Amino acid sequence: MIEKYVYKFFSKDLSEGKADMKPLLGGKGANLAEMINLGLPVPPGFVISTKACIHFLEKNETYPDGLSEQIDHVLQELEEFMGKKLGDNNDPLLVSVRSGAVISMPGMMDTVLNLGLNDSSVEGLARASNDSRFAYDSYRRFIYMYADVVKGVSKEYFEKEFVLLKEKLGVESDTDVPAKELKQLIQKFKQLYKEHLGEDFPQDPRKQLDDSIRAVFGSWNTKRAIDYRNYQNISHDLGTAVNVMTMVYGNLGETSATGVAFTRNPSTGDKHLYGEYLVNAQGEDVVAGIRTPISIETLKESMPKLYEELAAISELLEQRYRDMQDMEFTIQQGKLYMLQTRNGKRTGIAAGQIAYDFVEEELISKEEAILRIEPSDVENALFPSVDWSQINPNAPIKQVKESLKDKSLGSGLAAGAAAATGIAIFDADKAEEYANKNQDVILVRVETTPEDFHGMAASNGILTMKGGLTSHAAIVARQIGKACIVGSENGGISIDAEKREMTANGITVKEGDWITIDGEDGFIYADKLPTRPAQLPDSIITILNWCDTTAKIGVRANADKPDQFEKALDFGAKGIGLCRTEHMFFDNLDLVRGMILAKDESERKHYVDQLEPIQREDFEGLFDVSGGLPVIIRLIDPPLHEFLPSEEELLIEIYEEKLKGKTDEELKEQYNMLDVVRDMKEQNPMLGLRGCRLGITMPVVTEMQSRAIFKAATNVLKKGKKVYPEVMVPLVGFNKEFQNQKTIIDRVAKEVMEEENLQFKYLIGTMIEVPRAALTSREIAGGENGAEFFSFGTNDLHQMTLGFSRDDAGPFISNYMDKGILETDPFVSIEEEGVGRLMKLCVDEGKEANPKLEVGICGEQGGDPKSIDFCYRIGLDYVSCSPFRVPIARLAAAHATLKNK
Amino acid sequence: MIEKYVYKFFSKDLSEGKADMKPLLGGKGANLAEMINLGLPVPPGFVISTKACIHFLEKNETYPDGLSEQIDHVLQELEEFMGKKLGDNNDPLLVSVRSGAVISMPGMMDTVLNLGLNDSSVEGLARASNDSRFAYDSYRRFIYMYADVVKGVSKEYFEKEFVLLKEKLGVESDTDVPAKELKQLIQKFKQLYKEHLGEDFPQDPRKQLDDSIRAVFGSWNTKRAIDYRNYQNISHDLGTAVNVMTMVYGNLGETSATGVAFTRNPSTGDKHLYGEYLVNAQGEDVVAGIRTPISIETLKESMPKLYEELAAISELLEQRYRDMQDMEFTIQQGKLYMLQTRNGKRTGIAAGQIAYDFVEEELISKEEAILRIEPSDVENALFPSVDWSQINPNAPIKQVKESLKDKSLGSGLAAGAAAATGIAIFDADKAEEYANKNQDVILVRVETTPEDFHGMAASNGILTMKGGLTSHAAIVARQIGKACIVGSENGGISIDAEKREMTANGITVKEGDWITIDGEDGFIYADKLPTRPAQLPDSIITILNWCDTTAKIGVRANADKPDQFEKALDFGAKGIGLCRTEHMFFDNLDLVRGMILAKDESERKHYVDQLEPIQREDFEGLFDVSGGLPVIIRLIDPPLHEFLPSEEELLIEIYEEKLKGKTDEELKEQYNMLDVVRDMKEQNPMLGLRGCRLGITMPVVTEMQSRAIFKAATNVLKKGKKVYPEVMVPLVGFNKEFQNQKTIIDRVAKEVMEEENLQFKYLIGTMIEVPRAALTSREIAGGENGAEFFSFGTNDLHQMTLGFSRDDAGPFISNYMDKGILETDPFVSIEEEGVGRLMKLCVDEGKEANPKLEVGICGEQGGDPKSIDFCYRIGLDYVSCSPFRVPIARLAAAHATLKNK
Repeated sequence: MIEKYVYKFFSKDLSEGKADMKPLLGGKGANLAEMINLGLPVPPGFVISTKACIHFLEKNETYPDGLSEQIDHVLQELEEFMGKKLGDNNDPLLVSVRSGAVISMPGMMDTVLNLGLNDSSVEGLARASNDSRFAYDSYRRFIYMYADVVKGVSKEYFEKEFVLLKEKLGVESDTDVPAKELKQLIQKFKQLYKEHLGEDFPQDPRKQLDDSIRAVFGSWNTKRAIDYRNYQNISHDLGTAVNVMTMVYGNLGETSATGVAFTRNPSTGDKHLYGEYLVNAQGEDVVAGIRTPISIETLKESMPKLYEELAAISELLEQRYRDMQDMEFTIQQGKLYMLQTRNGKRTGIAAGQIAYDFVEEELISKEEAILRIEPSDVENALFPSVDWSQINPNAPIKQVKESLKDKSLGSGLAAGAAAATGIAIFDADKAEEYANKNQDVILVRVETTPEDFHGMAASNGILTMKGGLTSHAAIVARQIGKACIVGSENGGISIDAEKREMTANGITVKEGDWITIDGEDGFIYADKLPTRPAQLPDSIITILNWCDTTAKIGVRANADKPDQFEKALDFGAKGIGLCRTEHMFFDNLDLVRGMILAKDESERKHYVDQLEPIQREDFEGLFDVSGGLPVIIRLIDPPLHEFLPSEEELLIEIYEEKLKGKTDEELKEQYNMLDVVRDMKEQNPMLGLRGCRLGITMPVVTEMQSRAIFKAATNVLKKGKKVYPEVMVPLVGFNKEFQNQKTIIDRVAKEVMEEENLQFKYLIGTMIEVPRAALTSREIAGGENGAEFFSFGTNDLHQMTLGFSRDDAGPFISNYMDKGILETDPFVSIEEEGVGRLMKLCVDEGKEANPKLEVGICGEQGGDPKSIDFCYRIGLDYVSCSPFRVPIARLAAAHATLKNK
Repeated sequence: MIEKYVYKFFSKDLSEGKADMKPLLGGKGANLAEMINLGLPVPPGFVISTKACIHFLEKNETYPDGLSEQIDHVLQELEEFMGKKLGDNNDPLLVSVRSGAVISMPGMMDTVLNLGLNDSSVEGLARASNDSRFAYDSYRRFIYMYADVVKGVSKEYFEKEFVLLKEKLGVESDTDVPAKELKQLIQKFKQLYKEHLGEDFPQDPRKQLDDSIRAVFGSWNTKRAIDYRNYQNISHDLGTAVNVMTMVYGNLGETSATGVAFTRNPSTGDKHLYGEYLVNAQGEDVVAGIRTPISIETLKESMPKLYEELAAISELLEQRYRDMQDMEFTIQQGKLYMLQTRNGKRTGIAAGQIAYDFVEEELISKEEAILRIEPSDVENALFPSVDWSQINPNAPIKQVKESLKDKSLGSGLAAGAAAATGIAIFDADKAEEYANKNQDVILVRVETTPEDFHGMAASNGILTMKGGLTSHAAIVARQIGKACIVGSENGGISIDAEKREMTANGITVKEGDWITIDGEDGFIYADKLPTRPAQLPDSIITILNWCDTTAKIGVRANADKPDQFEKALDFGAKGIGLCRTEHMFFDNLDLVRGMILAKDESERKHYVDQLEPIQREDFEGLFDVSGGLPVIIRLIDPPLHEFLPSEEELLIEIYEEKLKGKTDEELKEQYNMLDVVRDMKEQNPMLGLRGCRLGITMPVVTEMQSRAIFKAATNVLKKGKKVYPEVMVPLVGFNKEFQNQKTIIDRVAKEVMEEENLQFKYLIGTMIEVPRAALTSREIAGGENGAEFFSFGTNDLHQMTLGFSRDDAGPFISNYMDKGILETDPFVSIEEEGVGRLMKLCVDEGKEANPKLEVGICGEQGGDPKSIDFCYRIGLDYVSCSPFRVPIARLAAAHATLKNK
């Protein structure tokens, strides 16, 4: 039996699709059918299913059996329905051909408009529309889009001709070019086409259609589409549908227009119709950002009835889809047509506001609201803003901004509220290259195209000269959470991509100069301004509180200092999952070096004892703000040579002094240090003398740290506050290591309780970061002296289980991801098959040995939503992450709980 | 019910013990009882069981209930049996008190002789023996042994007095000191005793006995005993028995003597009575090496009947114990008494010879013979000898030795055939210290004592001035397999431990100077002579062949070059388990650097292509000698910066040139290299860009190596020989890595087969060294493209699973072993609970996914008997080790098979 590949949507009665057929019809096709079903004004057309695409791509670019015939058949039906024939010489039927994947991929797939035009049907269109300028303009567009999308000849060749023509004529707007000039331009276009392709522009409409369909299929596998799917973790096996739809014309004079609209404001979530349109234009003019469109508010005044109609449709679609919609529409000589609807992209702040409002409007449940926001939405809401107070804490912001006047380049349209700072880079490849070197980058472009995606993803922010809030740059930036300012030419900024510089306000910014873009008001500064993280909006705070009620896995923070801990508590952390103690050592290098170089234990103790009050004070600060929440303090972890200068530094220092004439005798001290450094040097410090190996080698250090912790605890207890210290032993591989350290810690705790005559509860546990620890968790957690908690140090656990040094693996991890050997960076998301298996085994056996065992994670991956989902599935009690990831983790924790129900 | 702790052995009819009661009675006690049961002349006595000792040590040094009474009772029975009373004033009963652990620990436990003597019983003894010199000599001995062993006062204080006395009297031999001088010496000894202990020497024989028993119990936990058990992996929970035996006197004149004898020669295994004795002496004089004893051959002439009696007993005991015996005997005025028998320690060569002979004599089966030799015996047999041919290949050895005359220090008695070279170190602590720094050390001592054990174990060899072939030094050296020359004073060598030098033949060797000791003829050289490994004796070769029939796990060798492979085949390897290819790169650094620094793949290929014929030739050499046995070749593994100079080296080079006045411009090349080196530098190279990560990053290298392997194979095939290449991909963590490399290797194999028009079988497999690989073995081994073999790279697997960098972990591993955190060095024996668990999981799941999967081990631990046993138990097909460990591995493989039946 031959499969059905083609589905029509002609009218409410003649519709073969609906919204839930997305996997087969793609998002666009299913929604077009659904709009037809709702009785909305959609130009009739049909969808070729994703199955046809998959066949095409798998079987060496051939159609499946029956597809050609089905297209012929439905085309004939459409022609009958419309009473026009495709490419007819008389009032021809024209169609658009658009891609439509299951998951929306804006701008990544290709579109052909005005298909069916040729040298004779264009005359028919001119006659039928009584507007030859319109007809030739449509043909012009068709030729270059066809050349570009179907045949791969850059549209720039064609655009250049059009620009030259407009200059020659002295006109600015496309629509000011008269018909006969356009007719000549079409001849030029056809010549260009032949020059580049060695064949004439095809005149057969059926061939035009066929080649376009094939091109849409093929575009699924363009590099930029693959890159996008890789970035978004979308399967490469889904394929795209093809939507063939009767053309309606936004370029049919001043009562025609084309635009995009959101049912709510996608930046803020505010409930009002939001969008832009261009009069006398076709769709791609809006999205491409070539002309700066006008606000939908204007439509309210210029065509109030149409505005009302659009607003009503907006309301209806929101009810139907129970989500904010992003719609495309065209007005053809005063009549509204809907060309697309889909769930709209939004900023994180808007996502929160919309989800919250939908709950208030009783459209969705709280659980749905939780699932409606993505972790990336919360992340976006947490993007930084310019921290004016750092520039001048005492002056009002307005005044501070005024003071920066001579650094200001002007302004553009902010596509989101985020601010970003970085060096200006004028092309995507270079932006990626610098970003990979950990350079903060702002990508500066006249306008962006899908080819720029990788550079946008790599940059801190994007600045464009042209384009509006629904231009490619703006949409993508919102989606991937980047600061973005578009259309800055209106604010006086001129970007010269060739010269790699931009000028405004008398300032020239060259490539590599620092700039800051401020999403709050769209201003751009030729300087590196300080930034600070955004405050979470109330809507998201409310939803996160709902999350806490829902989530069955807790969230703590990694915080070393009281201010970090306070921030984390603000963000909803339920304790500290990891306090690293080494910064206290780095802040007192003289004492630490004394400790390292000590000749014996008593000399060592002399230095160590001086560190104790410093550590104690730090811990007191943490306990002070803890409110009795658990505070996990990890004993010293890094290799001791980190506290010493490097051999290379010393060699250079010594030789530079020698070059200045110093003698070896005068450099004795440096030479002595060189001896020590060489003696302590390790080939692989990550696998060397660090973690509990230090505490076992130098028990006085463990003793000092334990004393500092417990003394700090009793000091805070004496203030009438609660404390709950948890002492964590790092880098345990053998239970005997843990027992060695536990004996010291327990002894000191007992001593402090006796000295202070105070009792307190505390836990002793261990990091799980050495694979052997995971393999022997039963032993480490079991028995009366077993560990009371485990915390997965997933950075080290990945380093050792995968044999990837985090400091060195960057280059080959990139290479592995390019080659498909790795899907994600294991230092971002837990590698589940190997490391994850080890973690699961560890949790299962550890909890079996000690049912009270508290298990968490404190590695970087603890703030990663995918990893949090995994941690929930293997039964962790909490995750711990940096303070700024706490809100994201709270959401992810609720998601994990809901999705794994 | 009160437990029985005391067992008597009075006569054949009055004996409560037998040989198989060792765990209770200790080795010495059980064997004494057994000799009594066989009707041999053993002085009557009794044994206090190990259970009493365990109770004593566990319960705060108290006797268990009933022990005191049982001792009283059996003592009374003994007194009745002997017709004498302990410490009686008239012909007193005297006893010896000796330790006797389950497993023989020579010299490590303490002995008290002549117990029961006091100021009045000594007079009784003098009267009864009619020999007051003998009586006072016995009392003298008792006092200082009691002071030393029971009270912990060094016997040196007493010995010094005796030496002074002998000097004063102008006599050399102990026996030349007259009775009255001894009597005065005893007063001096008692004074010394009181000075050191603040109490009088105890006169109550029952108290003497009780304190001695307690001292023997306590000696179980002396540091040296604990060290020895740690070294030998003997449990600390066994405890020691105490043997109380009626004294017989070897010091009762010229017809009395005491000695030790072996039933066969413990150095060679030859079947003849072997041993030494001292006339008119007590037991400790022989073992302590204070006087140099005379050969047992002399006894044959001086007391032929006694010699016959001893030879007959020797034969009987061998039949009874079915093993070579080490006996202690005393002759008291012409009557022979047996004081001990036990299985004798022997050199590896002797062990092989004896086991082989016992099979020939039909005393034991071949399987028993296999189990009779320990891996350490084979190892000892493989100890090096001086390689005279390296000094002058064309001259006869005699002539070469003649040429070294001016380096020769003289000779001593060789306690084994091994030769060793190292720097002379004059005390045990320092010897250990230097050995830990990988310095070759020869421990040079006047004589050794149990306190020197750690230094002996750490040294390459031991040289002593005093003592015979059964002195402490000789016994221990044989047992732990060290080269050892004793009694060198007879050869003219004088050792001055205070001055830390020795002199002989006009040469002074200072501490730190190189010396060589040659066990073949006992000569010592003041030079570092070249050494070479010994040839295995025929007896061991025969037994190893029996092993191969028995063993169910194969043995291959790690060999990089044809000569190594040939050696391994000589030693019985069944193929190559690991051929490292990097030495070929190190030998061609210019090409490799070109390859590394290449700007693009085509430039890289230019260098790589030049490496191919070099590699091919190397592989051809291996295949040539392989006889069709499997040859596993591992693709390049080390990080590339190993082929470049280090940053420090370059910095020093650059600055030294600058100090000489060179300009930066003149040093441009070095600066460029510095840039490259810094660029490639890795923080943790062990976890960086190496192994298959190289082959994936630079596929031309994998391609070149594959081509070299397969071209080498076809070249050898063309000679009519068989080849069986196995290509091993290193450092795989992800199946996709393996697949990436396998695709290249398979393609090249196909190309070569087509080019050469030849077919050959080959396997592609992977190292298992990254923990993730072990965790995902099912995936790596499964499916039609799965790995065909696994080889555990246990060095890396331990590094990563334990987080121990092999280059850096030395210091803390030592510390961990001292602290009891680690029992054995994981880089010596597989750490079974963690790493071993991972290995087992890997084997189980890998073989489940691919039942044909061949699994081996090629890490250092592959040659370690304990690890081989583990590998057998988890189902490995073979182990692979260095050529010189192949014989040991063959034995261990048979042991594993037999012991795990």
